[in-house]
Amino acid sequence: MASRLQQGRGGRLQHRLFLHGCQGRKIVTSQVYIAGAAMTPFGRHNALSMQDLAQAAVLNALKDAGVRKDEVQAIYAANVYGGMVLGQVLIRDMGITGPALYNVENACASGATAVHLACQALRLGLYETVVVFGVEQLTQLGGGTIPLQRNDYKTELYASHGMTLPTVYAMRGTRYLHERGETAELLARVAVKNRAHGARNPLAQQRSEVTLEEVLNSRPVAEPLTLLQCCPSAVDGAAAVVLTTRRPTQHSAAVHILASAVQSGYQELGCDDILDAEITARTARLAYEQSGVDPKDVNLVELHDAFTIAELLYYEALQLTKSGEGGELLRSGATALGGRVPVNPSGGLLAKGHPLGATGVAQMVEVVWQLQNRADGRQIENAKIGLTQCTGGGIAGVDHAASSVHILGV
Amino acid sequence: MASRLQQGRGGRLQHRLFLHGCQGRKIVTSQVYIAGAAMTPFGRHNALSMQDLAQAAVLNALKDAGVRKDEVQAIYAANVYGGMVLGQVLIRDMGITGPALYNVENACASGATAVHLACQALRLGLYETVVVFGVEQLTQLGGGTIPLQRNDYKTELYASHGMTLPTVYAMRGTRYLHERGETAELLARVAVKNRAHGARNPLAQQRSEVTLEEVLNSRPVAEPLTLLQCCPSAVDGAAAVVLTTRRPTQHSAAVHILASAVQSGYQELGCDDILDAEITARTARLAYEQSGVDPKDVNLVELHDAFTIAELLYYEALQLTKSGEGGELLRSGATALGGRVPVNPSGGLLAKGHPLGATGVAQMVEVVWQLQNRADGRQIENAKIGLTQCTGGGIAGVDHAASSVHILGV
Repeated sequence: MASRLQQGRGGRLQHRLFLHGCQGRKIVTSQVYIAGAAMTPFGRHNALSMQDLAQAAVLNALKDAGVRKDEVQAIYAANVYGGMVLGQVLIRDMGITGPALYNVENACASGATAVHLACQALRLGLYETVVVFGVEQLTQLGGGTIPLQRNDYKTELYASHGMTLPTVYAMRGTRYLHERGETAELLARVAVKNRAHGARNPLAQQRSEVTLEEVLNSRPVAEPLTLLQCCPSAVDGAAAVVLTTRRPTQHSAAVHILASAVQSGYQELGCDDILDAEITARTARLAYEQSGVDPKDVNLVELHDAFTIAELLYYEALQLTKSGEGGELLRSGATALGGRVPVNPSGGLLAKGHPLGATGVAQMVEVVWQLQNRADGRQIENAKIGLTQCTGGGIAGVDHAASSVHILGV
Repeated sequence: MASRLQQGRGGRLQHRLFLHGCQGRKIVTSQVYIAGAAMTPFGRHNALSMQDLAQAAVLNALKDAGVRKDEVQAIYAANVYGGMVLGQVLIRDMGITGPALYNVENACASGATAVHLACQALRLGLYETVVVFGVEQLTQLGGGTIPLQRNDYKTELYASHGMTLPTVYAMRGTRYLHERGETAELLARVAVKNRAHGARNPLAQQRSEVTLEEVLNSRPVAEPLTLLQCCPSAVDGAAAVVLTTRRPTQHSAAVHILASAVQSGYQELGCDDILDAEITARTARLAYEQSGVDPKDVNLVELHDAFTIAELLYYEALQLTKSGEGGELLRSGATALGGRVPVNPSGGLLAKGHPLGATGVAQMVEVVWQLQNRADGRQIENAKIGLTQCTGGGIAGVDHAASSVHILGV
């Protein structure tokens, strides 16, 4: 698959995706736009049902897109823990009935995988307008990562032996500091940055700026990770986007999906080298190739900072800097708001919260708002190209993982 | 979307699918073939893990297709109750790593929905060769429908009040007999037929022929449904197909997917008229339109006979006969092996068993084997076109449902 970016009339960016068909045919496919984007506040929503959350996101995304319910031809529902035919149940009272509905799961990459599948159908011309939503209500499971792993027979055994998500990431952090000759302060800087961003996002769960000292002195979770370096997991929320092949006119700029890539593999950050985010690196290469975008041209990134160490590893996997220079990139301020390529302007998983199925979609909501100058209080100037990345699985007991990278542009 | 069937050189059926793109463009898409098909025996496999089951199905399907592991570009995994990133976990020891992996759930229609999504990507030219597998291990949940509903918060309340799947189908059966002036004997005939078919299928869970009297006198489950009119639900199994856009040469005839349709809606067999299988009727119309196949030209059908009443309702929804004439179709023998359009030659869910995620894929395995003269002991003569149908959801507490119809041809 290859593509090219063209400057159209009036300097407007035009994007044509060419698919090199498997039998040598070249198919010019439809462009896919994000016409509308919405999310609920992420937080503890004990008084709300999963229906309430999904409905708020979907109906607001439709309103944002100026798309009527009867124009929706398919729905993609992303969720991890909600159970059977959840999408159908959640849209029950929305007055949208009839269209094909696909329930998609890829752990924390569920939302992005749902967008990816929707893109395929839209590019093919199977549908003109679809809705993708992600939702999760983790507070019902008690919050924390142990209840999550306990809910899954594959990870239960590992959890009972102490191999929870924080401990797995902590080992990566320890190795990183050792290999790079860094101290825990570097990891803490990620939390300071993203929590400063989150403080400007009214939809984030945790909206307090913190100092390096506060991060380092917060309760130890798994050395070298302290509490403020872990994303809040007792969180509920939903996010939705309306995807269409009709050029939307509702907002200042039409947001294209320039690339949509999902890959799987053996243990993202695996046993051979726990600092090698191989799947994400491979997925990113695919996305850059699809879009024709150079990593240097990316203006903002929303990435999977479930724990501070993850952000540092993904800087390099996403080619935001050279291998080995992730720490320097962070220290330079390039990835903070006001820097060359702000990373997680929304606050990221660390401050915004991480309701699994919703996360991948919410990352795109943030990028859409940034590209359309709708990110009040944290707006990045003149952003034209944004990238989202999230991963799923790859934890103890689930040693295969998925990664997803999308590139959006105006 | 429209298509046409053409007689090619040597009378070989050729199929071209034209997609009328949303902006008026016409896209000629790739043909999709089922190059290989395999399934495990359905039954109580307490000594086997879910990995064992999935591995047997996938590796045998690849062998059947003559496709190497390194040719697989994506994997679609269908499952209902296995939990997070199950597909990735199950392929772990198969030596297939790297490709995109999509975990798809649509209750009992999960397997068919996974095939549907795979078809979209293949038609688009995104992949050339993919594997779709479905797997479920219901014996681990204790079997029966109450444990299944108890495992799902949405249906748990209803189950505790007695609204389990058998009681919901029983109400449909009672209404059908009342409306049509029939007796319980008609329902029992479905079980006699499909269990006779299953007796000829070495992979079916229940392989005993039964008489009308035995069906009617078996333990009452929910009037008018007796035990032998309900599919066995304490069952484990897996099924897999290899889909490709390269014309396969491995077998006597190349099986095309002529149509792939998934639709959702409000309560298949719902409250307004519990005998109206609206979603399936709509999905079938779409599939006939896509394929250009006339319902009269269908030579065999694998349909969702979870309970005997379901088969009678789907005869009409699938246009195998006129509305109101389903009973007559059954009594005429047309839907038995040797009849005009054998329905559930595999034994159906009633005899073969119903491991949810595997069912939709297993239906296609049967049709492939029939179309390629590989259904020893239950072979339908000269079958050219087969149809599979399954539904998901639509039970108490999950009143939105999915339906899927595929049409395969040689």
